[in-house]
Amino acid sequence: MRKLSVRTPAEGLVNITGLVEAALEGHTGLVYLFVPHTTCGLLVQEGADPDVARDLLARLDELAPRFHPKDRHAEGNTHAHLKTLLTGVHLLLFAEGGRLKLGRWQQVFLAEFDGPRTREVWVRPL
Amino acid sequence: MRKLSVRTPAEGLVNITGLVEAALEGHTGLVYLFVPHTTCGLLVQEGADPDVARDLLARLDELAPRFHPKDRHAEGNTHAHLKTLLTGVHLLLFAEGGRLKLGRWQQVFLAEFDGPRTREVWVRPL
Amino acid sequence: MRKLSVRTPAEGLVNITGLVEAALEGHTGLVYLFVPHTTCGLLVQEGADPDVARDLLARLDELAPRFHPKDRHAEGNTHAHLKTLLTGVHLLLFAEGGRLKLGRWQQVFLAEFDGPRTREVWVRPL
Repeated sequence: MRKLSVRTPAEGLVNITGLVEAALEGHTGLVYLFVPHTTCGLLVQEGADPDVARDLLARLDELAPRFHPKDRHAEGNTHAHLKTLLTGVHLLLFAEGGRLKLGRWQQVFLAEFDGPRTREVWVRPL
Repeated sequence: MRKLSVRTPAEGLVNITGLVEAALEGHTGLVYLFVPHTTCGLLVQEGADPDVARDLLARLDELAPRFHPKDRHAEGNTHAHLKTLLTGVHLLLFAEGGRLKLGRWQQVFLAEFDGPRTREVWVRPL
Repeated sequence: MRKLSVRTPAEGLVNITGLVEAALEGHTGLVYLFVPHTTCGLLVQEGADPDVARDLLARLDELAPRFHPKDRHAEGNTHAHLKTLLTGVHLLLFAEGGRLKLGRWQQVFLAEFDGPRTREVWVRPL
């Protein structure tokens, strides 16, 4: 397993496709990715039009608003935990000759909901 | 890896359980499924009462309405990208003797949010 | 594959980290978990502050209210099906020497949305 380090903004979808591929060393098969965090997730989404990421983050903010009058969690980031629940913390993907085998519009993103931070992505070729 | 082709309606949960099993050729172990798309997902849900799929799609429409005044993505299908984020694009399942090993009420669905289209499902016995 | 049995409350995040580890028998590698149910899910979230689970369940109730005037599913638990769709029914995790290899704040939960019941968790070291 390799641990990758990703520097993130306050909130955003950070494209990690190239970073993951750099760790594949020519691998063909499957690749498992995991983030050991509770307020950031992993997802596969469109990477061509940056408006997709922008719209997704804006709509997620409405589903999981930052302030909710009933929240009790003292850190005040329940919204980030909920967004992470919705995205999940792992991915399983195809790889071929060191490249991720994705659909035409797909890219792999670390979804930061509570940054800026330095996050880890654990990568394991299978 | 085998690539299955699925013809979809405008929106709907398409039961692909039989289609996937036809590609298993007696396999026992795990099965990995992936859709190389950004506006359709994969999920495991109840297949007995069609009202479950109907209700789920209706409620997802409220969580991710088709028109949102703040959307910028020019294709106008941000709602479908969000629904795909919520479902995910891959599954890992048990198989036994060429049949998916699921719970009593579970079936495997391709969740189409932006059809009608011809979608691919990539299948890999493990 | 081993089948674990989990007794659940009406609704709640049941920490199954220790239960899963008891089934690992010293395994190092990956671990696959699956619930053969349509109204409970699996997730990885913060286990340190119980307010996180409480807030998540409260916010999920708002995203998927128990009663919705348009629901048709006769069992009246469409909300639980939707919450399960949002969490997913499987996890893939790292294990090392019989312990789950998680982030500092992460624990593994069975998310019960339609209990109390006795649920199964299928575990397969890889």
